[in-house]
Amino acid sequence: MVVVMAPGATEAQVEAVIARVRQAGGEAFVSRGVSRTIIGLVGDVEQFRALNLRRMAGVAEVIRVSTPYKLVSRHHFPSRSTVVVGGSGGRPEVRIGPEYFTLIAGPCAVESLDQILETAELAKAAGATLLRGGTFRPWSSAETFRGLGRSGLHMLAEAGAATGLPVVTEAADARDVEAVAEQADMLQVGARNMQNFALLDAVAQSGKPVLLKRGIQATIEEWLMAAEYIAQRGNLNIVLCERGIRTFEPTTPATLDISAVPTVQRLSHLPVVVDPTHASGRRDLVLPLARAVIAVGSDGVLIDVHPDPESALCDGPQALAGADVRVLASAIRRLAPLLDRDTADVTSVLVPEPR
Amino acid sequence: MVVVMAPGATEAQVEAVIARVRQAGGEAFVSRGVSRTIIGLVGDVEQFRALNLRRMAGVAEVIRVSTPYKLVSRHHFPSRSTVVVGGSGGRPEVRIGPEYFTLIAGPCAVESLDQILETAELAKAAGATLLRGGTFRPWSSAETFRGLGRSGLHMLAEAGAATGLPVVTEAADARDVEAVAEQADMLQVGARNMQNFALLDAVAQSGKPVLLKRGIQATIEEWLMAAEYIAQRGNLNIVLCERGIRTFEPTTPATLDISAVPTVQRLSHLPVVVDPTHASGRRDLVLPLARAVIAVGSDGVLIDVHPDPESALCDGPQALAGADVRVLASAIRRLAPLLDRDTADVTSVLVPEPR
Amino acid sequence: MVVVMAPGATEAQVEAVIARVRQAGGEAFVSRGVSRTIIGLVGDVEQFRALNLRRMAGVAEVIRVSTPYKLVSRHHFPSRSTVVVGGSGGRPEVRIGPEYFTLIAGPCAVESLDQILETAELAKAAGATLLRGGTFRPWSSAETFRGLGRSGLHMLAEAGAATGLPVVTEAADARDVEAVAEQADMLQVGARNMQNFALLDAVAQSGKPVLLKRGIQATIEEWLMAAEYIAQRGNLNIVLCERGIRTFEPTTPATLDISAVPTVQRLSHLPVVVDPTHASGRRDLVLPLARAVIAVGSDGVLIDVHPDPESALCDGPQALAGADVRVLASAIRRLAPLLDRDTADVTSVLVPEPR
Amino acid sequence: MVVVMAPGATEAQVEAVIARVRQAGGEAFVSRGVSRTIIGLVGDVEQFRALNLRRMAGVAEVIRVSTPYKLVSRHHFPSRSTVVVGGSGGRPEVRIGPEYFTLIAGPCAVESLDQILETAELAKAAGATLLRGGTFRPWSSAETFRGLGRSGLHMLAEAGAATGLPVVTEAADARDVEAVAEQADMLQVGARNMQNFALLDAVAQSGKPVLLKRGIQATIEEWLMAAEYIAQRGNLNIVLCERGIRTFEPTTPATLDISAVPTVQRLSHLPVVVDPTHASGRRDLVLPLARAVIAVGSDGVLIDVHPDPESALCDGPQALAGADVRVLASAIRRLAPLLDRDTADVTSVLVPEPR
Repeated sequence: MVVVMAPGATEAQVEAVIARVRQAGGEAFVSRGVSRTIIGLVGDVEQFRALNLRRMAGVAEVIRVSTPYKLVSRHHFPSRSTVVVGGSGGRPEVRIGPEYFTLIAGPCAVESLDQILETAELAKAAGATLLRGGTFRPWSSAETFRGLGRSGLHMLAEAGAATGLPVVTEAADARDVEAVAEQADMLQVGARNMQNFALLDAVAQSGKPVLLKRGIQATIEEWLMAAEYIAQRGNLNIVLCERGIRTFEPTTPATLDISAVPTVQRLSHLPVVVDPTHASGRRDLVLPLARAVIAVGSDGVLIDVHPDPESALCDGPQALAGADVRVLASAIRRLAPLLDRDTADVTSVLVPEPR
Repeated sequence: MVVVMAPGATEAQVEAVIARVRQAGGEAFVSRGVSRTIIGLVGDVEQFRALNLRRMAGVAEVIRVSTPYKLVSRHHFPSRSTVVVGGSGGRPEVRIGPEYFTLIAGPCAVESLDQILETAELAKAAGATLLRGGTFRPWSSAETFRGLGRSGLHMLAEAGAATGLPVVTEAADARDVEAVAEQADMLQVGARNMQNFALLDAVAQSGKPVLLKRGIQATIEEWLMAAEYIAQRGNLNIVLCERGIRTFEPTTPATLDISAVPTVQRLSHLPVVVDPTHASGRRDLVLPLARAVIAVGSDGVLIDVHPDPESALCDGPQALAGADVRVLASAIRRLAPLLDRDTADVTSVLVPEPR
Repeated sequence: MVVVMAPGATEAQVEAVIARVRQAGGEAFVSRGVSRTIIGLVGDVEQFRALNLRRMAGVAEVIRVSTPYKLVSRHHFPSRSTVVVGGSGGRPEVRIGPEYFTLIAGPCAVESLDQILETAELAKAAGATLLRGGTFRPWSSAETFRGLGRSGLHMLAEAGAATGLPVVTEAADARDVEAVAEQADMLQVGARNMQNFALLDAVAQSGKPVLLKRGIQATIEEWLMAAEYIAQRGNLNIVLCERGIRTFEPTTPATLDISAVPTVQRLSHLPVVVDPTHASGRRDLVLPLARAVIAVGSDGVLIDVHPDPESALCDGPQALAGADVRVLASAIRRLAPLLDRDTADVTSVLVPEPR
Repeated sequence: MVVVMAPGATEAQVEAVIARVRQAGGEAFVSRGVSRTIIGLVGDVEQFRALNLRRMAGVAEVIRVSTPYKLVSRHHFPSRSTVVVGGSGGRPEVRIGPEYFTLIAGPCAVESLDQILETAELAKAAGATLLRGGTFRPWSSAETFRGLGRSGLHMLAEAGAATGLPVVTEAADARDVEAVAEQADMLQVGARNMQNFALLDAVAQSGKPVLLKRGIQATIEEWLMAAEYIAQRGNLNIVLCERGIRTFEPTTPATLDISAVPTVQRLSHLPVVVDPTHASGRRDLVLPLARAVIAVGSDGVLIDVHPDPESALCDGPQALAGADVRVLASAIRRLAPLLDRDTADVTSVLVPEPR
């Protein structure tokens, strides 16, 4: 920490700061400038924060120079991590990390067993190794489809079993986490819930890997602190998911922060994937953005696919269907190897013709 | 709703839209322009949304022209509402609404019985009619003080009883709501939880009045939709609280959106108060902003006060202490009557001298 | 300046930084922490910036702790300034500063001699001491009224002479500044031009007082640096004008940053006024916001008024007309004295009845 | 245009709107809903705007449904354009458009003849076909290097001649445009000047192709309107350049809006390139972002390169030097062909070893 004294601060005020820091067991190094004096603090940052130094007479500013997260920081764990999903109940292990490019695909919401089975086939044919589908969906307005709940969860698990894909679904309420964790291989924490700490507690304790979406309003630091919160509760199997931030630009529902991928990879050892579907809200933007996501060096991509988007109960306008899915599969197979990443072994492009 | 056809849309595409709308029981009125055709829809908006019109060939845009909230809308309930807090357990009734200017004050967190009693006296002397204090505090980093929980709640209730002030405290976890509602007269939903629908469900069902803070990145429409969600669950005793939004300006932790007050009062019948403390993060900004809050026509103000901010376990730098509280009390007594608002009857300025 | 070394920085890297700083004539003080070393620099900041320290091996961050503006800073000139406008050509001197509350009013654009004369009477009757009107208006779209140019300038000057009000108008092109400065008592730099340095050069050299609007995207620091740029060219007669910043909130064209007023008054000695008209874009928001502007402690307010807003060539929906102007005049006369500010001596409310 | 009537609007108010529209030569089609009536207007939008319909009694909202730009719109000119730069003074023609991927590279500022010659060689070796360098640089603070002006311009032209690369440089003042246009093959309008209409006038009249950067807080629509302004003055040789927008995220100086590329390509026929250097501000982010820029389908990329970034007079921390430039060249040669784009014919990777 650095304490910046106000221009007119007296020697006594400087001494008072030093004294308080020393009393708390820290050391203080003073740099006296012509117009300003700054004091570097050495010791336990948490303790310094309790000192309320900013409130002391003559203090202009207190600047924190270390990061407020440790377990998820790359400073402390320089190697990038690989998170393993699945591996139980007969479903294969899927790895998300620096050596892979993982396609996570599925419908916005599970609507029926037929729909999720058909979508799972579509996803798998495109090279997806994880199946995602909404079952307990958060409210966003009275007219939002809130999901099929437990029955949707069973359908999702059945579709995963049928196609050999581990499944991921969102838990939006701490009280649903146990039920969801029984069926799902990975739990998604949605953007609206990134700072819902009751929910973070529950998913941490579930023991399942967590897909942690960035809040639409969250800085990268706040996002990593939410991951730190989960990690502190004993669960380090966290995959971060960038999904766009809120800005003044109205043409897209959110502005995809593509720079967040290399930034997070520099700050944290956790894998990071990107959801271009919800950031862009338009099918015609999803494919170019998916290519950018691969090229920027993301560890994976999350894409909404649906066998018949026009009939989808939610987010139809942004879901990819047959032909687009084939283009996506092809883009992944051509681009990901250039970034030294393994992808699913899709020997032939199996994506069924669109209905 | 209005459907805007793309410049080159064909007559058949226009007819297809009309047909789909009529099939759903709606009516469609067409305006054919030189470069564009637009179609006005009349009927049930919720049904129209399910039609996925935006996905139809030739459709450029679908614009919603009605608001997505009804129960909290002033269009449907033109008179502004007054919310009553307290009135049970020997505590007085306090009214928040267009005829009053309500001061809600207290410490960021309840720290001890002595501290909350002392703060309650300070608040009351300044004209506060509601006592606010954090007991179950949401996590924001590992070093945040998370509150005393149930014992803090008892201290808060005791301080309320001792001073005759109804109390308001935040519930951050749906599972705490019942315990909090037993002691508190009003439940606060914090900015981070504005879209935590499990929590909104629980506070709606508690039967207690709700103080609903605006999310730091929430539009006014999203805020009113969160209120609508609570209202749809049978609880219309909602007071909205503006507390600053996230912008690019770094000198304050949030930018207080003062225009939100008259804007919300035009759109909704619910009372709206303002918290300038957390938006500004600096004690020297709180007083000028509090004056602006009164003058803009807010129904009340929420202020952090603390008998000894230097020792506060949280948010000390922004809490008002003795002398500042006296200035605040004086500002309210001089300005609020000019806006035709009643304030607490503080016969003499009783604020104790700072320690 | 403070140099923060990366966690694994070597002793040699620390020494290299120190050596480079000393070579440039500065001093370096080292604070060695357990996980981080920080180096405080003492000397000429401008020189340190040229050292490219951020590029040196082992350096994680370079943090500037002093402000990049001096002449407009309150650190260097603690007393708040008063700017004098007018005083020549028979027009009175008007003071803008901490002892006054100045109403600057007029139409968005000068449309005809009759219109500006009528508006000037309306403004004066409401207590305005400065008349503002657009003559050389910046383009914002092909359909924007771009003003009458020189003839509008003459009409404005004539209306100022007739009512005894000094006049202020915008210069949007450096090449127009000379012509504008011949007629106007104060030059406005619009929000779009806050960083148009060719224009800032010209207005600085004009010798006239400058009304510097904050860019819709500008931080307070950038705004003060634009003022510093003018000041460095020898013109310190600058009045800052907050007019709203761009945020995600769509109900208003800009979010009025009311906190900017006390923040700027703490950082700079320059007077600061507020334009609530363009921030809110709606007449029904202008009055409550104007009250907030007075109460927050602003040195003045800029209001669009028009005798017949329905016929206005620009910004009609936000201009105040007859009855509203009377309410504004009354609000100023009642609120400003409570803030210890003088206002124009309007012995009777002379505002003419609306047409 | 669509006029939305307020819920309680009377029939007479609806009729008044219709009458006013018809008087102005337009047609009005009414859709009467249960809770709302909307009126679709057909005719000349510019005329309708002059009617001040929003001010009429009973009108809740007026929604524009057409775009405010025509000449640069893809609705009117469906084929994407190719802009030709150079071709005179012995310099080759370079094409920017949908069939190419153009690398524009050079130093933040021209510092000396040696420096710009060396940088031009480096740029050319990496596959650049346009050389960019700052000569008349805009002020951003007193300590910013403002460029060598005319002598820098001559050095840049000499380096262009020596390497056979057309040159592009920024004009920040309308009065410099003529001098700049004599030497440069393309004129850059910087982000701060996107709405400096005096400058846009001058560059439009220069007859040279224009590189129009997006303002840091400009919506895509405002950016296209600035292009429209240039186009209306007879110059359609415009290349748009995305360079990041201002958001709340502090880890990068701006958030690169990668979605803007496909969005602009859908809305406008103009070529669009991206500058990842100034958005990210960090060399280690430039390479991953440059890959994303190629993959998203941009028509080119603008990169700061410098033979010795540590000694650069501006923006050294983000400039690429030797080894990184080789990696960039390789990424372009591998990725661009996958997007069906031609790149410069760089037979061998000639990038010199770093000094």
